[in-house]
Amino acid sequence: MTRPRGFRASGVAAGIKAGGALDLALVVNDGPRREAAGVFTTNQVKAAPVLWSEQVLRERRLRAVVLNSGGANACTGPEGFQDTHTTAERAAELLDTGAIEIGVCSTGLIGQRLPMRALLDGLGTAVDGLADTERAGTDAATAVLTTDTRPKQACRTHPDGWSIGGMVKGAGMLAPNLATMLAVVTTDAVVDGEGLQRSLLRASRSTFERLDVDGGTSTNDTVLLLSSGASELTPTEEEFTELLTEVCTDLVRQLQHDAEGATKAIDVTVRGAVSESDAVGIARLTAEDNLVCTALFGSDPNWGRIVMAVGRSGATVDASSMEVTVNGVTLYSRGAPVADRDAVDLSGRDVEILVDLHLGEHSATVLTTDLSHGYVEENSAYSS
Amino acid sequence: MTRPRGFRASGVAAGIKAGGALDLALVVNDGPRREAAGVFTTNQVKAAPVLWSEQVLRERRLRAVVLNSGGANACTGPEGFQDTHTTAERAAELLDTGAIEIGVCSTGLIGQRLPMRALLDGLGTAVDGLADTERAGTDAATAVLTTDTRPKQACRTHPDGWSIGGMVKGAGMLAPNLATMLAVVTTDAVVDGEGLQRSLLRASRSTFERLDVDGGTSTNDTVLLLSSGASELTPTEEEFTELLTEVCTDLVRQLQHDAEGATKAIDVTVRGAVSESDAVGIARLTAEDNLVCTALFGSDPNWGRIVMAVGRSGATVDASSMEVTVNGVTLYSRGAPVADRDAVDLSGRDVEILVDLHLGEHSATVLTTDLSHGYVEENSAYSS
Repeated sequence: MTRPRGFRASGVAAGIKAGGALDLALVVNDGPRREAAGVFTTNQVKAAPVLWSEQVLRERRLRAVVLNSGGANACTGPEGFQDTHTTAERAAELLDTGAIEIGVCSTGLIGQRLPMRALLDGLGTAVDGLADTERAGTDAATAVLTTDTRPKQACRTHPDGWSIGGMVKGAGMLAPNLATMLAVVTTDAVVDGEGLQRSLLRASRSTFERLDVDGGTSTNDTVLLLSSGASELTPTEEEFTELLTEVCTDLVRQLQHDAEGATKAIDVTVRGAVSESDAVGIARLTAEDNLVCTALFGSDPNWGRIVMAVGRSGATVDASSMEVTVNGVTLYSRGAPVADRDAVDLSGRDVEILVDLHLGEHSATVLTTDLSHGYVEENSAYSS
Repeated sequence: MTRPRGFRASGVAAGIKAGGALDLALVVNDGPRREAAGVFTTNQVKAAPVLWSEQVLRERRLRAVVLNSGGANACTGPEGFQDTHTTAERAAELLDTGAIEIGVCSTGLIGQRLPMRALLDGLGTAVDGLADTERAGTDAATAVLTTDTRPKQACRTHPDGWSIGGMVKGAGMLAPNLATMLAVVTTDAVVDGEGLQRSLLRASRSTFERLDVDGGTSTNDTVLLLSSGASELTPTEEEFTELLTEVCTDLVRQLQHDAEGATKAIDVTVRGAVSESDAVGIARLTAEDNLVCTALFGSDPNWGRIVMAVGRSGATVDASSMEVTVNGVTLYSRGAPVADRDAVDLSGRDVEILVDLHLGEHSATVLTTDLSHGYVEENSAYSS
C-alpha cells in the first residue's frame, strides 16, 4: 500500500481491542491528486462506516482512510453513525482537510458501540506514526485483522513505472455481492475518479465477488481505491484495470488461504453454461454447500454431493450431459460414474472442481474453502 | 404405519449394507382401496427410483412401496433405472399385481449401483415377513435409516375412528423444495387419489418443506401417502388435511431432533413480512446461515449474525424497523441493541428465533439445527 508513491500509512494499538493488539490503521494520500473510488456491501443492513463512506465517496475524492478492528459499528443506531462522523471529523482536523475527504471502515463484532475516547486518542498517535515504509504498511494491514492469522498485502508495478498496492482483511462472513471484507488499494497512476470507479467495479467482479467462504455477506464490506497520481503517468483504462485485477486476485487468494479453519483452497469452475449468471450461480451454490465442503475437509471425492448441489441450483442443467472432474479426474459423465473415486488425489491443499454442463459457452470460477472443525470452533466462540 | 387398518410392513437385512443391518423395507396396502399420492424432490438431478415413482404415481394407485438404504441409486445411468424397474417387477410378481402399482425409494450414497441379487433375494424375505404389528412397522422404519440414529414414526387417530400413520428417514442433505427425505404415510380413511394429492401438497408445504438443516436438496426425496379405505369412513378434506398435517409435523420434529450432529433444535420465525415468500425466504436463509448456526452451537446469542443474514436476503427488509428476539428476549430493535445478550438463556436444546420486520402481515417458521463438530465429523467421513 505504501509502495505506490504518494502514500503513507500507520497501524497503532489504540486500546479498542483488549490485550494491546494493533487495532487502528490510517492510510493517507499525499497527492498531488486525491481521486478515489469504492465498492460496498449489498447487505441491506449496512454499518455506520459504510453509510458514511458511501456518502463521501460520491465526490470521488479521499485524503485518507481510517480503519479499526475490534468493533464493526453496525446496528448501533444514530449514536453509532455519530461515532463514525466524529472519527472522520477528528482525522480531518489532524490532516488539515474536510471530513468529506475521510473514508472510515470498521470490522469486528456487530452491535456494540466503539470506545470513542480510545479511538480518538489513537488517531493522534496514528497520525504521528505515518510513514511511507514497508513496515508502516504492514502495521496498517495488521491493525485491521480480526480472526485472520496474518496481514495480507499485494503490489504490482507496471513496466511503465506506475504501481498499484493494497491490503485486505477478512476470514469469515465471506461472500460477496460486492467485496466481502475491508480492502484499501492505492495507486500512483494518474486516473480520474470515474475511471477509478469503472476499473474497480470491473476488477471486483472477477476477484472479490468470486470468493465465497460461507455465504455470509457482511454489514461492513468495503473496498476503497485511492490514486495519488504521484507517478505523473497516465495508463490506459485497460492497462490499469488489468494490473488492478492482478493485485485484487493476489489479495483474494490470500483471503482464501487464510479463511477461518480452512485446510483446503477450493476452486469451483463451471463451464458450458447457457449464461454467465448460470455459471456463477452454480459455482457459488456448490462453493457454499456444506456437504461438498465437509467432504473435501475429509479429503473425500464425494462427487455425488457436487451433482446434488448443481442440481438444486435454479440454473439450466441436464444430468445426462453434465460432467464432473475433481483434480483432473473425471468422475461423472453423462448420467453415470466413469472412474473410481480413489483415482482422485486430495492429499494436497489445492482442490479444483470442474463442472462442465455442455450446454453453452459461458464459464465462471468461484473460490472457497472446506468446512472444518476449525471453522466451527472459531465461529461458535466468537462473541462469548 | 401399520396402525391404520389395511397395511402390513416388514424390514429385513438383505445385505445391501455391510454388517447385517436392516436395509430393505416393504409397506403393503391390502385395501380394499389402493389410492396413493406423492411429492418428490425438486432437484434437477433425480435418482432412478424418483423417476420411477413419479411416473407410476400418475395413476394415483399403489399396492406397495419398496424402500432400501445402503445406496441412493442416483447418477447410475440407464442401468440404475433398470435396477429400479427390476425391483418393482419382482415385488409386483411376489404380490400378484403389476409393476405400475409398486413405488420404489432408495437412500444412501450417490453414484453406486445397488447389489441387485441381494436386493431381490431380500425382497422375497421381506414379503414372507409382512405383518400388521407394531414391530413390523418399526423394522421397516429402521431399515430405511442411514445416518439417522433412531427410527421415526408417528400416528394419529381421528375421534371418528380413522387413522393416519407414517415413517420418515433423513438426517443430512435436508432442505426442501419438496420433502427432503423418504417418508411413507398410510391411512385407512376413504380418500380418492386427487384428494390425497391435494392434502399431501398442503400438509407438506407447512411441514416437510419448512425443515432446512443444511440447504442440501437430495436427489432422492420422496413422500408417499397410501390409503387403504379399510375404516370405511370418509372424512372431509379439511379434517383429513388437518390430521395429516399433525402427523407430518410430528415426523418433521423427529427429523429436526435427529439431524446430523444436532445439539440444538432451532425454530426461526419471521413475522411482519410483506409476503409469505419473503417470510419463508428470510427464515430459510437465516436457518441455513453457517454463522448463525455455529454461534448457536456455542450457545452464543450473537444476534448481529441474525441481522446480517436477514439483511443479505433479497426480501424487503428495513434495518430501522426490524426486531430480533431470541428465546423471548428482544435484543435488537429499530436499528440498535436493546438488551444485554447475557439476558438470553441458551443452555437448553430448544431455541426460538423471532424476527419481526414490522412491514406487513405475513409470517413463516422454518426449523433447523445448529452446525456442530458432530455435523462436520459425520459429513467428512461419509463415503470413505
